[in-house]
Amino acid sequence: MTIEVAVVYHSGYGHTAKQAEAVSKGAASVEGSKALLIPVDAVERHWDDLSRADAILFGAPTYMGSLSAPFKTFMDATSTLWFQRSWKDKIAAGFTNSAAQNGDKFSSLMQLATFAAQHGMIWVGLDLVPGNNSSTGGLDDLNRLGSMLGAMAQSNADQSAEFGPIASDLRTAEYLGRRVAEAALRWKGGGLAAPESVLG
Amino acid sequence: MTIEVAVVYHSGYGHTAKQAEAVSKGAASVEGSKALLIPVDAVERHWDDLSRADAILFGAPTYMGSLSAPFKTFMDATSTLWFQRSWKDKIAAGFTNSAAQNGDKFSSLMQLATFAAQHGMIWVGLDLVPGNNSSTGGLDDLNRLGSMLGAMAQSNADQSAEFGPIASDLRTAEYLGRRVAEAALRWKGGGLAAPESVLG
Amino acid sequence: MTIEVAVVYHSGYGHTAKQAEAVSKGAASVEGSKALLIPVDAVERHWDDLSRADAILFGAPTYMGSLSAPFKTFMDATSTLWFQRSWKDKIAAGFTNSAAQNGDKFSSLMQLATFAAQHGMIWVGLDLVPGNNSSTGGLDDLNRLGSMLGAMAQSNADQSAEFGPIASDLRTAEYLGRRVAEAALRWKGGGLAAPESVLG
Amino acid sequence: MTIEVAVVYHSGYGHTAKQAEAVSKGAASVEGSKALLIPVDAVERHWDDLSRADAILFGAPTYMGSLSAPFKTFMDATSTLWFQRSWKDKIAAGFTNSAAQNGDKFSSLMQLATFAAQHGMIWVGLDLVPGNNSSTGGLDDLNRLGSMLGAMAQSNADQSAEFGPIASDLRTAEYLGRRVAEAALRWKGGGLAAPESVLG
Repeated sequence: MTIEVAVVYHSGYGHTAKQAEAVSKGAASVEGSKALLIPVDAVERHWDDLSRADAILFGAPTYMGSLSAPFKTFMDATSTLWFQRSWKDKIAAGFTNSAAQNGDKFSSLMQLATFAAQHGMIWVGLDLVPGNNSSTGGLDDLNRLGSMLGAMAQSNADQSAEFGPIASDLRTAEYLGRRVAEAALRWKGGGLAAPESVLG
Repeated sequence: MTIEVAVVYHSGYGHTAKQAEAVSKGAASVEGSKALLIPVDAVERHWDDLSRADAILFGAPTYMGSLSAPFKTFMDATSTLWFQRSWKDKIAAGFTNSAAQNGDKFSSLMQLATFAAQHGMIWVGLDLVPGNNSSTGGLDDLNRLGSMLGAMAQSNADQSAEFGPIASDLRTAEYLGRRVAEAALRWKGGGLAAPESVLG
Repeated sequence: MTIEVAVVYHSGYGHTAKQAEAVSKGAASVEGSKALLIPVDAVERHWDDLSRADAILFGAPTYMGSLSAPFKTFMDATSTLWFQRSWKDKIAAGFTNSAAQNGDKFSSLMQLATFAAQHGMIWVGLDLVPGNNSSTGGLDDLNRLGSMLGAMAQSNADQSAEFGPIASDLRTAEYLGRRVAEAALRWKGGGLAAPESVLG
Repeated sequence: MTIEVAVVYHSGYGHTAKQAEAVSKGAASVEGSKALLIPVDAVERHWDDLSRADAILFGAPTYMGSLSAPFKTFMDATSTLWFQRSWKDKIAAGFTNSAAQNGDKFSSLMQLATFAAQHGMIWVGLDLVPGNNSSTGGLDDLNRLGSMLGAMAQSNADQSAEFGPIASDLRTAEYLGRRVAEAALRWKGGGLAAPESVLG
């Protein structure tokens, strides 16, 4: 059995692109899993890939407290697929980057989980307890920002993507990609018949 | 293969209890699925049931814009299980009731999805397009409140649980219970080996 | 003393425009208050108006569980103003419309409140208890959708803006506009000296 | 003119109590402002103080992704005041502490902002741009966690309240207290007549 994992993302200055690459690397590292990176401005060529994907990871920078406008443009463009229930029961997950340590990144992840719920998708969060939350913790800890709904990364506002996000945040992104691929394999293996309404 | 679905809930005046019963009925209607209703004030006798459950549905009324305090008391009591990662990779879903049509019920469902993510659980929302959103729609429609993250119900503030929630909201709750049981069967069937960290 | 209230909005098919007009009408009905309606695609000509405004009301349809992309494009375009703290201490409020009764409209209002907080603005919600939440309530009630953070409206998916949002939702929008103008007058009258940091 | 600022808080192990004290210190430092600290388990003796207060700051630790249960018990106990609109048009703000850097603290602040909106209160966030978000930033920066809706603090999980929250988070809390007192003075000075419904 094999699965396909799509990673759709927007990146303003390259920092979120690095996070997306780490997610994709994690997804591709799982046996039987194939990962596809889709920058959001190329999505028009990839609707079929998204329809075929077993799992989709969504990612964008947090701007002004929520997902970047170019990513929202993509989200709105899925409304026909929404109505057709095309993405129903696919695995979904999310990630976001910003310059602030927190910077309302939770708000963006919640926006993604809500978007996935609109599509009837199954949401897989980060299953890691927080790092850097004790006297022995540090910036190198996995999940050092302490996020649960998805993966967060931080990149300095005055530095190019060559310098950020910091390494531990990229490892956290990679972890999420791997977890999502494993979840998609498990979910596909389940092979349940199509759910029917209780109203039949 | 069989699965167990636990429904943990709080109900102040009986309305949310009816919603919980509908969820449980839906879960029990799936072949191979066994459902267990757990009122939150009896949870001390059911920690083992929760540990064994393949899926847990969480439900409570929305009071003052978020989940009721008795339910939050239960949530806080799971912190040791959280640290042990005991509920990791279980299926989770949520439901809530209030007197207002909206009444910030989304806020409660978001709180539940966040709680499930804290535990590393897999969130299953409602996969129904909204009802009662067109000139031909009505109060009898499934998902007539138009919720996505989970099931919402509305009960009049001046009427006992004999009269609320309205029938369509109970059918929506039943639908969610059934969907969660089907998801838990599919997920269990996947039989994936325990996920390993990318850090090995 | 006079104040200016700006209403910046996006509308896909005219329904949210009607809600914006109702908000503006309410704001203009307060003595000493002047209201200005700004469709988001004309915002480039109105940055000075926004800088001068004592209060800004933000509104957009809820698409796919959050604010529409054209409105997010406007939000992202305020990042320089954000850095300059240009809108700090202005009064802010929000409204949204969708076809579903609920349809994750809370999520959009939360996104707006978070955006306002990013700008250091003061958030004024709807101060109305919910309507249509009892056996004697009905669709004509003010705040019949039971929203708190701001004003919600519902318009049928299969009907043009000639038929929606329903009248009570427009009255609720008008109420919010009036409340915001009254709050802006009160806030302006306070005439506090510029806040200084405790670190000053 | 003088104002009263109440700070209602819950603290499990003393860390959030220190944050509350910093908030209170900031509020009391403003000329004409009197601050009152109310631990949530003593709130029964302070309902009159809360009714009289011009501003109320709410604070609690984030447990399992939302406000602690003892604090939610207090929130639910305000439902009669909610129905009477007793706290309508008071100034409100919020703060929270957790061991994780992020730890879903945004979720708690959103829960507080929603609660304040339920009461028809006016929400005052933190008006500080994020600290520690560039190559020259550090842990000593004001608002080093980059929060907007309110004040966040972080305390190590393995250390007593003697050692946490860290100093910059306490200064950020103090800043918020001061800002809220200044806002309450300005708001009170406005002296607007009681708002009337557009429905008259």
